Amino acid sequence: MKLTILGCGSALPKANYYNASQLLQVGEKLFMIDCGEGAQIRLRQLRIKTARLNHIFISHLHGDHCFGLIGLISTLGMMGRTGNLYIHAHADLEKLLQPQIDYFCREMPFQVFFSPLNPRANEVIFEDKTVRVSTIPLKHGIPSCGFLFEQKEGERHLIREKLDFYQVPVKQYHLLKKGEDFVREDGSIIPNKKLTTDGRPAKRYAYCSDTAFYEKIIPIIKEVDCLFHEATFAQAAAVRAKETFHSTTHQAAEIASRAHVKQLIIGHYSARYDAPERELLDEVRPLFPNSYAATDCAVFEF
Amino acid sequence: MKLTILGCGSALPKANYYNASQLLQVGEKLFMIDCGEGAQIRLRQLRIKTARLNHIFISHLHGDHCFGLIGLISTLGMMGRTGNLYIHAHADLEKLLQPQIDYFCREMPFQVFFSPLNPRANEVIFEDKTVRVSTIPLKHGIPSCGFLFEQKEGERHLIREKLDFYQVPVKQYHLLKKGEDFVREDGSIIPNKKLTTDGRPAKRYAYCSDTAFYEKIIPIIKEVDCLFHEATFAQAAAVRAKETFHSTTHQAAEIASRAHVKQLIIGHYSARYDAPERELLDEVRPLFPNSYAATDCAVFEF
Repeated sequence: MKLTILGCGSALPKANYYNASQLLQVGEKLFMIDCGEGAQIRLRQLRIKTARLNHIFISHLHGDHCFGLIGLISTLGMMGRTGNLYIHAHADLEKLLQPQIDYFCREMPFQVFFSPLNPRANEVIFEDKTVRVSTIPLKHGIPSCGFLFEQKEGERHLIREKLDFYQVPVKQYHLLKKGEDFVREDGSIIPNKKLTTDGRPAKRYAYCSDTAFYEKIIPIIKEVDCLFHEATFAQAAAVRAKETFHSTTHQAAEIASRAHVKQLIIGHYSARYDAPERELLDEVRPLFPNSYAATDCAVFEF
Repeated sequence: MKLTILGCGSALPKANYYNASQLLQVGEKLFMIDCGEGAQIRLRQLRIKTARLNHIFISHLHGDHCFGLIGLISTLGMMGRTGNLYIHAHADLEKLLQPQIDYFCREMPFQVFFSPLNPRANEVIFEDKTVRVSTIPLKHGIPSCGFLFEQKEGERHLIREKLDFYQVPVKQYHLLKKGEDFVREDGSIIPNKKLTTDGRPAKRYAYCSDTAFYEKIIPIIKEVDCLFHEATFAQAAAVRAKETFHSTTHQAAEIASRAHVKQLIIGHYSARYDAPERELLDEVRPLFPNSYAATDCAVFEF
C-alpha cells in the first residue's frame, strides 16, 4: 500500500497544510479519503494520474473534508474521464453536491454515484477481488467515521520446477494458487507448501479522523500495518481537544499502542502550530516510537 | 490601487496557476474579484488580512470562478469575522451557495448577502464615498460580465499658508476641499486653485474575464489606468478561442490598444501552456508594449 498525503491541516488551511485529503494506492487501484479544498491542486502538483481513481470515501460532512469534491469532479469531467466515480459518504452529501454537479458539470462524460454510509456502524461498504473497505465509527461533533482498508491476501505463487517435477497438470494450477494440495491419481498427496510460496501479504490501513479519544476503535484497528490517527492538538491543549471532539498527541499514541499497530501517522493539525510535524511528533514518539508526522505531499509505503 | 493576483489559471488549475481570483485594494478597502478554488489558500500564503474585505464580485458561474467561495466563507466564519459579506453575482449563485452555507457554516458570526447583478447591462452595482463599481457585459458561453472599479477623485488638499494669508474662515474649508472658490465679504473672489492642490487622482481598473473578443467593451474601459483582459490562448489557437468564447493574445492587445488603456495585464491562461507568463506575453508586447503577465501572487500597483 502506498499512502500519499494531499492535505494534513485541520479546519483552517495553512500556507503549507491544506485541508484533509489522502490518496491510498492498493495494487493498481487508487482510493481517495476525504477531499478538502485544494485536493485536486495537490494531485496536479504531484502529477498523479486519476484514471484509476473510482472511489472516494468521505469521513464526515465538515467542509474541510469535502469542499474539494466539486472542483475535483468538474476537473475530471473536463479531462475527459469516462469511468464512473463512486462517493461513499453520509447521505446528506448527495443532497448538497448533486445540485452543484447538475449546474456546473453539464455534459460530463462520466457519472457520479453516491453510496450512502452509516457512520455509526462498523460494516463493509466496499469490496472487490483485492480490497475490502469498512467503516470505523468515531466520536466527533457530527456523525463521523474512519475507514479500514484491507488488502486481501494474494494468490500463492507457483514454483515452476516443482510443478514439473511432480508432473502437476496445468488445470490444477488455479487450485494450487488458492492453497489446495495436489492429489495425484494414485491418491497420494503433495502438500501445497511444497509447490508454492506465499502470495502477497494482506496489508491493512486504518484512517481515523476526526475523532475524540475513543477506545471503541481499538479492536477494529488492532495490529493494522499503518494507522493514521488525528492529533489535532498538543497534550497541553487537552481541554480544547475534548471540547472540539478532537484528539491530542498522547491520545493518538495511546490508541496506537493499545491497538498494537505497526506504524502510526499523525495529522489534522490545528493551525495554531507552526511546525506540527516536529512539535506534535515530539510528544508522540516517546509513547509510540514507530510514529511519523504527515506533511502535505509526503508518501508512506507499507 | 493595488491588485494582487490570487489565481491566474483557467478551467484546469495547474500546480502554480490556481483558478481565477484577484484582490483589489482601493485606499483602505479590499474587493475580491472571482473566487476560484484555493483563493483562501493564496490569501493565507500571502498573509493578507481579510477584515476589510466586504464585497466579492463574481464574473460568471463557471466553477473555476466561484468554487472557492464556500471554503472562504467557512474560514472567515471560523476566524470570528463579524462584518457582513456581500456577494455580487448572477442570481443563480444564491440558490447554489445558500444551502451549503446553511449546512456547513452554522453559527457564523456574520451574514452573507447576495446582491444579484445583470451581466448583460453596463450599470453601477456598488458605490460608496470613494469607489464605484459597474458591470461590463462580456461575450462568453454563459452570461458573464467584467467589472470596472473607479476610485473617486480625492478631496483637494488645502495650502495652509495661503489660507492664513487670505484669512479664510475655518468653516469654509470643506467647500474649498470640494473645489469651490473663496468669496470674501467684500465680494472679491480668490480662485480655488490659489488655495488648494489636486487631491488623489481618480484611478480606474477594468477586469474583463472570461470573454471572446468583444469590441463593445472598448468605450466602457476607455483609458483606464489598468486593464486585466483574459488571454486564454496564443494566437495560433484562435479557432479554439472562438469556439470556447475566449480571447487570444492578439485580441487582448487589440482591445487594450483601441481603448487606449495605460497598462494591460493578461491572464486566465489555458493549462496547455507551460510558461504562459513568457510565451503569451511575447505575443502581446509587440502589439501593446505596456503589457504584463499575471502570475499567482503577483502584485501590481497603479
